[in-house]
Amino acid sequence: MHKLVLMRHGQSQWNLENRFTGWVDVDLTEQGRQEAAKAGELLKEQGYQFDLAFTSVLRRAIHTLWITLDAIDQAWLPVRKSWRLNERHYGALQGLNKAETARKYGDQQVLIWRRSYDVRPGALDRESPMWPGKDPRYSSLSENEIPACECLKDTVARVIPYWESDIRPAVSAGKRVLVAAHGNSLRALIKHIDQISDENIASLNIPTAQPLVYEFDDDMKPIRHYYLGNQEEIQKAIAAVAAQGRSH
Amino acid sequence: MHKLVLMRHGQSQWNLENRFTGWVDVDLTEQGRQEAAKAGELLKEQGYQFDLAFTSVLRRAIHTLWITLDAIDQAWLPVRKSWRLNERHYGALQGLNKAETARKYGDQQVLIWRRSYDVRPGALDRESPMWPGKDPRYSSLSENEIPACECLKDTVARVIPYWESDIRPAVSAGKRVLVAAHGNSLRALIKHIDQISDENIASLNIPTAQPLVYEFDDDMKPIRHYYLGNQEEIQKAIAAVAAQGRSH
Repeated sequence: MHKLVLMRHGQSQWNLENRFTGWVDVDLTEQGRQEAAKAGELLKEQGYQFDLAFTSVLRRAIHTLWITLDAIDQAWLPVRKSWRLNERHYGALQGLNKAETARKYGDQQVLIWRRSYDVRPGALDRESPMWPGKDPRYSSLSENEIPACECLKDTVARVIPYWESDIRPAVSAGKRVLVAAHGNSLRALIKHIDQISDENIASLNIPTAQPLVYEFDDDMKPIRHYYLGNQEEIQKAIAAVAAQGRSH
Repeated sequence: MHKLVLMRHGQSQWNLENRFTGWVDVDLTEQGRQEAAKAGELLKEQGYQFDLAFTSVLRRAIHTLWITLDAIDQAWLPVRKSWRLNERHYGALQGLNKAETARKYGDQQVLIWRRSYDVRPGALDRESPMWPGKDPRYSSLSENEIPACECLKDTVARVIPYWESDIRPAVSAGKRVLVAAHGNSLRALIKHIDQISDENIASLNIPTAQPLVYEFDDDMKPIRHYYLGNQEEIQKAIAAVAAQGRSH
């Protein structure tokens, strides 16, 4: 039996401010750091240890991972960072408040931008300071790989090659793997693992800093998955994520 | 011109207590964290950015690196961790107070243990809880690679293969490399880079968390090296390291 633990980063400054974040490199809040420490404690209590960790190149995920690794006494763990695990790029929405945007464009439009599988919001201007092409961490990406905006389908298209090339082979080889990433890069991964339809993925919401365990058989077929920790709290956290894009 | 920045970790708990540490995985003190942050600020002020970082599998070096990377806004940097950059293994001396040990065995004996090139202190008992063979982070090492005690010559013998296989090729390829490691793994590296004799290496002391810049020509010949920051403070810090093993 193979195990994989997925974790969304703790609360970030722009989660707190209810803003679309995407590839903007905001940090964790104090609450986010505490959430990460709590997740680490939970993993430690339940005896989790890992052989390898993956994360994005965004500090909210990296810091969540660092705090978690410290909690389980595994700061020494090999860590691979990839832009392919970054949050979905939110294009022109990046920086905007979700509720304000809903008041301006309507709840329905924001729900489409947040949860439709293949509708992109407007593209980020290439002259914007948020344009990733100016950032040295993306200097190895080709022009085509640098997103101006993504729908979830686009995120799936760049996350899954990394799953196939790096994460899945490690899990399949028996390594105990931890992935610290983002709401939408994890939704992309889970859609693929559980073969969730383009329609049904809309209703999948992932709470911050709650370890989500996936178990696979020897053929890497998913057997079951479950969140560690207090299930009632987790359900509340999931409902709160779902409600973020509403105007009231 | 190629640049490499070497940095010893900030003050650790056992630096503070003046104990032989070796492979025991003690953490930074609050002062050590501040030293690392200060080193990071210095690098930032002088415009240093890196393409790749190396560190050991011991948390005092890893945390020093993490704090430094945060200070220069490069938490996203690829980091490779290797046991080959660990501190010199201090064998049976690990955990002992340096001054007490000097009072017991004499300053001269402790100086030999600390600074002779090829005299090993006593070996660590394989039944000791400090024995690295029990630690999962060393599970990929062969029986021969797990040290029970090292003299600096032994440390050189396991650091230099990693320099040749991983660090040197990266620097030579034009990558800007940061190495966060330990007093003796850095002495081993510097001995090799600067071709310092077995005798003369005894008087080389490295202060904690002071960025040490090495410049190389295109043939990877060292041109010059210098510490960033306040040179007077650095000289004081170097003298303090040299004095650690004295009984008074």
